[in-house]
Amino acid sequence: MSPELPTAPDLHVIDWFNTPRPLSLQDLRGRVVMIEAFQMLCPGCVSHGLPQAQRVAESFSRDDLVVLGLHSVFEHHAAQGTPAALKAFLHEYRIAFPVGIDAPSRDGGLPKTMAAYRMQGTPNQILIDRQGRLRKQKFGPEQDLLLGAEIMSLLREEASPFQPIEEERRAAAACDGDGCPVPASS
Amino acid sequence: MSPELPTAPDLHVIDWFNTPRPLSLQDLRGRVVMIEAFQMLCPGCVSHGLPQAQRVAESFSRDDLVVLGLHSVFEHHAAQGTPAALKAFLHEYRIAFPVGIDAPSRDGGLPKTMAAYRMQGTPNQILIDRQGRLRKQKFGPEQDLLLGAEIMSLLREEASPFQPIEEERRAAAACDGDGCPVPASS
Amino acid sequence: MSPELPTAPDLHVIDWFNTPRPLSLQDLRGRVVMIEAFQMLCPGCVSHGLPQAQRVAESFSRDDLVVLGLHSVFEHHAAQGTPAALKAFLHEYRIAFPVGIDAPSRDGGLPKTMAAYRMQGTPNQILIDRQGRLRKQKFGPEQDLLLGAEIMSLLREEASPFQPIEEERRAAAACDGDGCPVPASS
Amino acid sequence: MSPELPTAPDLHVIDWFNTPRPLSLQDLRGRVVMIEAFQMLCPGCVSHGLPQAQRVAESFSRDDLVVLGLHSVFEHHAAQGTPAALKAFLHEYRIAFPVGIDAPSRDGGLPKTMAAYRMQGTPNQILIDRQGRLRKQKFGPEQDLLLGAEIMSLLREEASPFQPIEEERRAAAACDGDGCPVPASS
Repeated sequence: MSPELPTAPDLHVIDWFNTPRPLSLQDLRGRVVMIEAFQMLCPGCVSHGLPQAQRVAESFSRDDLVVLGLHSVFEHHAAQGTPAALKAFLHEYRIAFPVGIDAPSRDGGLPKTMAAYRMQGTPNQILIDRQGRLRKQKFGPEQDLLLGAEIMSLLREEASPFQPIEEERRAAAACDGDGCPVPASS
Repeated sequence: MSPELPTAPDLHVIDWFNTPRPLSLQDLRGRVVMIEAFQMLCPGCVSHGLPQAQRVAESFSRDDLVVLGLHSVFEHHAAQGTPAALKAFLHEYRIAFPVGIDAPSRDGGLPKTMAAYRMQGTPNQILIDRQGRLRKQKFGPEQDLLLGAEIMSLLREEASPFQPIEEERRAAAACDGDGCPVPASS
Repeated sequence: MSPELPTAPDLHVIDWFNTPRPLSLQDLRGRVVMIEAFQMLCPGCVSHGLPQAQRVAESFSRDDLVVLGLHSVFEHHAAQGTPAALKAFLHEYRIAFPVGIDAPSRDGGLPKTMAAYRMQGTPNQILIDRQGRLRKQKFGPEQDLLLGAEIMSLLREEASPFQPIEEERRAAAACDGDGCPVPASS
Repeated sequence: MSPELPTAPDLHVIDWFNTPRPLSLQDLRGRVVMIEAFQMLCPGCVSHGLPQAQRVAESFSRDDLVVLGLHSVFEHHAAQGTPAALKAFLHEYRIAFPVGIDAPSRDGGLPKTMAAYRMQGTPNQILIDRQGRLRKQKFGPEQDLLLGAEIMSLLREEASPFQPIEEERRAAAACDGDGCPVPASS
């Protein structure tokens, strides 16, 4: 394996929905994985990120591509932290792909998976290749046309050509229509 | 006052946001009142009902028209019932008009204001005229063009021509993109 | 009649569609009239102005409100000037309200009705009250909520309270998504 | 070359815009080609097909992918057939990729390229691979996510795995929001 491309960090999940058993990236090797990190109360997640993840889940075979949701709460913990609230949310928004609750940190900072991936906020989109390597991480909205191309590019890979991680930085200080950034102090 | 047009039932609210003191319909006499009943986890409320209420609040003078939100939770109580959750929701969605939490019933059925108005689900739009009479109640989405016309019609009234209440019935069994209906058994 | 509110200038139309006989503002006295001036090749007319005019035509009774289209070509005359092209356009876009072709000027400048109303470009929206007076003229997009309120305000008038003409000025140098302005030299 | 995959028929174009010289598929070998067949007066082309083609042209390098427009007029010839009208249309809608006028047939039927590809109407999307073979033909709207994936799949091909042509049949009798079908008798 190339030393240039990092292996995607493990998921730290305390509870799963829409799956009969816990999932791990290790178990998903061989398939492309798309992770959509979100918060129930993040407007950009509800209006753009999650609907796009649903379109992806419906457009590609689950044998090739697995879409995972990750509820990464970094603000309003009391308001959106309960599993019951998330379960109701997934039901009402008809989200059928597996969703995990990102493990809270002990010190009240970013949840563990979010911190491991150094996400900047939500929605945050992650693509992991068939070999388990992190290939894309993006905070904020993404165009369907580009996402479709990126996914197909990874689907057509075997063990082959490496590409750098796309990691875009957005400058935002508070939730806007596009997403909710992690405050600078987190 | 005409015997044909009913006075709008009082609001039963246990907590208010975005207002320094509790509001009552009695205090708002002389102005037109629009009430947008919603639930945080109702997709049609988030995508259509609340954005429309925000446009109304921004388009008319508060001296003439008051927009009120009413959080009428009739399902997933544990998930969306806490004031902290609602407060975070209003913050993230930048809802600036006054919002009240509809008082839960003792028996776990519809909240009290929702029951008094016999609402069929959320989002539910209510228009009350300058004399405090119920003039429109509608479950589900409404066109901006018609709503603008209805509001202006009430704004131009003094004590004058009476119109029947518009109350449309929608047949829906579960939440869809347009709204969340009250189950038949409620 | 008030000296403050001008009578709407007459229409100069060389050809009509979707009406068995030519229309004049004089004949429409007693009803509110909305005129949507457009050009076939104006993107903002196709995406916003004409669909909004169609919603208005479908939302109000023709006994109270008449919607008229006005094809006011001030650029690309050769390309969009023929009646056959307009007829095909109206057919494909399913525009059912009456549409007139604004009479070209002799000197190749603005067509006659457009000049008489001193329109700044297309789409241009005009509202005329029941007494035939010009009450609104606006170049560019308009919100449905406000338009609905303006129309209802005029519908509820008899002979009564006069309002100034709303005429907004937009600064634009070429067609954009909102509209096509008349060049400064016209 | 595989006998299973047909070579894309030649283009029959009488006039080109947005290109200094006529284009041929032969000259574009080595690149993926997307052809968007449209008509100026086809609502689905204006609202969906052409904006999507513009997004494609802006999202991929022209060294890899060439987007071509093809004005394939099969109805309202008098209204939309003139080069001057098309030129004005391309200007107003800011279409910057090369566009050709499909050569009319002698008998007034489908234009020649449209007939050679046996298109069912407009908008019609065509994908041609680096070897000049027809790989996709679709009448009506297409999702960005799928189109992005299809394009990337062709971009990553060298001489390799063959796939069947995707050709979907839609049942439509007249222009609707999605497109304008060729009448059954054509």
